[in-house]
Amino acid sequence: MRHYLGGKPLTKFEEALERLLNATKPVAHTEVVTLTEAVNRVLAETVNAPFDVPPFNRAAMDGYAVRAIDIAEACPENPVSLKLIGSVLAGEMPMCPVVEGSCVQIATGAPVPEGADCVVPIEDTERDNGTVRVFKAFSTLSNITEKGADVKEGCIVLTEGTFLTPAKVGVIAALGIDKVRVYSKPKVAILPTGNEIVKPGAPLRTGQIYDINSYTIAALVAQHGCEPVLGEIIPEDPEAFKSELDKSLKVADCVVFLAGSSVGERDYLPKLASERGILLFHGIATRPGRPTLAAFVDEKLVINLPGFPASCLTMAYVLLVPVLRKMARLPEWQPQTVKAILAHDVHSPEGLRQFLTVKLKRQAEDREIVAESAYKESGTITSLSEADGFIVIPEEVTCLEPNTTVTVTLF
Amino acid sequence: MRHYLGGKPLTKFEEALERLLNATKPVAHTEVVTLTEAVNRVLAETVNAPFDVPPFNRAAMDGYAVRAIDIAEACPENPVSLKLIGSVLAGEMPMCPVVEGSCVQIATGAPVPEGADCVVPIEDTERDNGTVRVFKAFSTLSNITEKGADVKEGCIVLTEGTFLTPAKVGVIAALGIDKVRVYSKPKVAILPTGNEIVKPGAPLRTGQIYDINSYTIAALVAQHGCEPVLGEIIPEDPEAFKSELDKSLKVADCVVFLAGSSVGERDYLPKLASERGILLFHGIATRPGRPTLAAFVDEKLVINLPGFPASCLTMAYVLLVPVLRKMARLPEWQPQTVKAILAHDVHSPEGLRQFLTVKLKRQAEDREIVAESAYKESGTITSLSEADGFIVIPEEVTCLEPNTTVTVTLF
Repeated sequence: MRHYLGGKPLTKFEEALERLLNATKPVAHTEVVTLTEAVNRVLAETVNAPFDVPPFNRAAMDGYAVRAIDIAEACPENPVSLKLIGSVLAGEMPMCPVVEGSCVQIATGAPVPEGADCVVPIEDTERDNGTVRVFKAFSTLSNITEKGADVKEGCIVLTEGTFLTPAKVGVIAALGIDKVRVYSKPKVAILPTGNEIVKPGAPLRTGQIYDINSYTIAALVAQHGCEPVLGEIIPEDPEAFKSELDKSLKVADCVVFLAGSSVGERDYLPKLASERGILLFHGIATRPGRPTLAAFVDEKLVINLPGFPASCLTMAYVLLVPVLRKMARLPEWQPQTVKAILAHDVHSPEGLRQFLTVKLKRQAEDREIVAESAYKESGTITSLSEADGFIVIPEEVTCLEPNTTVTVTLF
Repeated sequence: MRHYLGGKPLTKFEEALERLLNATKPVAHTEVVTLTEAVNRVLAETVNAPFDVPPFNRAAMDGYAVRAIDIAEACPENPVSLKLIGSVLAGEMPMCPVVEGSCVQIATGAPVPEGADCVVPIEDTERDNGTVRVFKAFSTLSNITEKGADVKEGCIVLTEGTFLTPAKVGVIAALGIDKVRVYSKPKVAILPTGNEIVKPGAPLRTGQIYDINSYTIAALVAQHGCEPVLGEIIPEDPEAFKSELDKSLKVADCVVFLAGSSVGERDYLPKLASERGILLFHGIATRPGRPTLAAFVDEKLVINLPGFPASCLTMAYVLLVPVLRKMARLPEWQPQTVKAILAHDVHSPEGLRQFLTVKLKRQAEDREIVAESAYKESGTITSLSEADGFIVIPEEVTCLEPNTTVTVTLF
């Protein structure tokens, strides 16, 4: 079954997403941040080891640093006695070299003194004042981590494009590097439109409602590695649309127009987008989200999300988030999901992909989670406040029976 | 099988976590943030609707605002003609009341003019210059969203303690509220210790290594809703430990000491903690993490994580993250996990819960993910750089066979 917008067939969801992603360019700008700012950022340079790790031969156990040749014959029946000539702790410089017949007490992590070539674990020794008896032979390099064994100087440790988790931040610290070049956060201009909407904090006249979409979308943009740039509310006037688009294209990497409400589209944007660039799609085969538009203008993506707050946010989760993450060079989103049982049947038009917002309830008795439609009348805020996430109903499915198990993507 | 530290039996992991969480207090401080800063924060106040939503009777469809009584007899064979006396768009004030025999064109979202009590959808009408013919009867309030139908003035819309997702931020915006009181981020003092460690950026002398743990733990603390406060490196001296603990307890909600390396614990902290407060546990039945310590001092948690970077980070994921999130009042962590096939057998001592760091490889052919131990010698940074996450081997399991399916918690 085909569906239409203004007489033109709707673009399928998968096709729309593909066109969007094909037109999305990963951010090229970079910046330098300190290590404590580096988590969740994306590395814009290759990190090489500036020195061998460890930078010296290091004791891998607590014990005694000895010459392997001196204890080659040691055994329980015939221990070898060595003269204890010093000790070295982690962080210390060994003061005296180990010479024939001598040993130095050593702590795990401490540098092995010159002359010594193995470490005898403390449990294979007995100490008597200045003498250490060794009960077991060890070969050269036993219980020693060799200089460069972990990472050799000059080796690539992290590659450009690495997403910096806490562990990766630690790897950079291990190399003594305290600043690192990362990709800048792409800037996303958020442009609310509509004569009836007012910024929160300002008084409301009859007929006006507060701008919701700027704040839901800005929050989502920030959660997915980009920097939201909130614009002023654009009145419904083609000149205002044009000048705000031009202004935003100068400062942002992507421009998102937000319809203020359900108001019959005045279609400034399809016309403007076609004049200024290439229309990627206008009208997609989804519910909600039918009037969604995307264009490619001045080498940048311009997207128009629908006005009803729950529709706007849902379309942003499914269409905008992949774009944001590709721009920010973040790994693909792995949304948190939960399995639930549908409380009632859900009908869905053939040929449209439906994203139905649901609220979840855990049944006390059997601990099953039940999903119930959170959709109320379009534009209600309780549709937003009560929704825990959404389910996806594919194009070919026209009815889900009660008790169907569904996967809920959590907001 | 029982395991010991310094002659004392180890505390079981579950017991240690329970003691930690029982001693964890959710943050009490609050602060006011703007809407664009509110995402991922936790509401510290109840949000009530300051007005009815919608604040006026609103058209739910594009059509004509009429008096239901005027069209009570309308049907396709006998349409009712009404005089078109005006129009009202969303955001506009209706200019003229609807009187008997008249109608006003109305857009979805626009306020219903005085006198009208229902909206006839455009598809049930025909327009001819100044006259609109209505082909269908509608009852009072049809296609009108009543004032307050969504939310009644004074109703609780969001309760204290709500985690602010993009959707919830939108709900606050809908109510015209531009600032909101949230819980402050708990401050976590991070105190690196050890004579051998040096801050990244500073030069390294023989025997010294760079501080890694401060940066991995700070990154994790920031990811889980808290504010890391990095301290200077504490030398191994009981007086220094005492003064840094006292200083940190004054500014932070929780204090985390980080052992600098594997160095045989000098046991300043167990003694200090017992003198200053209550030792919750010292020594837990895990691998790694055996020397982990927790205490309750001046009504605050003091934790000591082990020194080897991979051990420190792993213990932080399993013990510190639940504490951080409880302090920050965040919902329980739902880590990202992936199923994988073990590449080799893994042995684990009975009675210890093992957290084994693994690296993942996707087999090109069959697309199965294979997990391989990332554990190398303790203290190597490649153990960190190559690890993708960890698997948990319960206390009673002593061997996992190759090809066992395991759940990997991703870093």
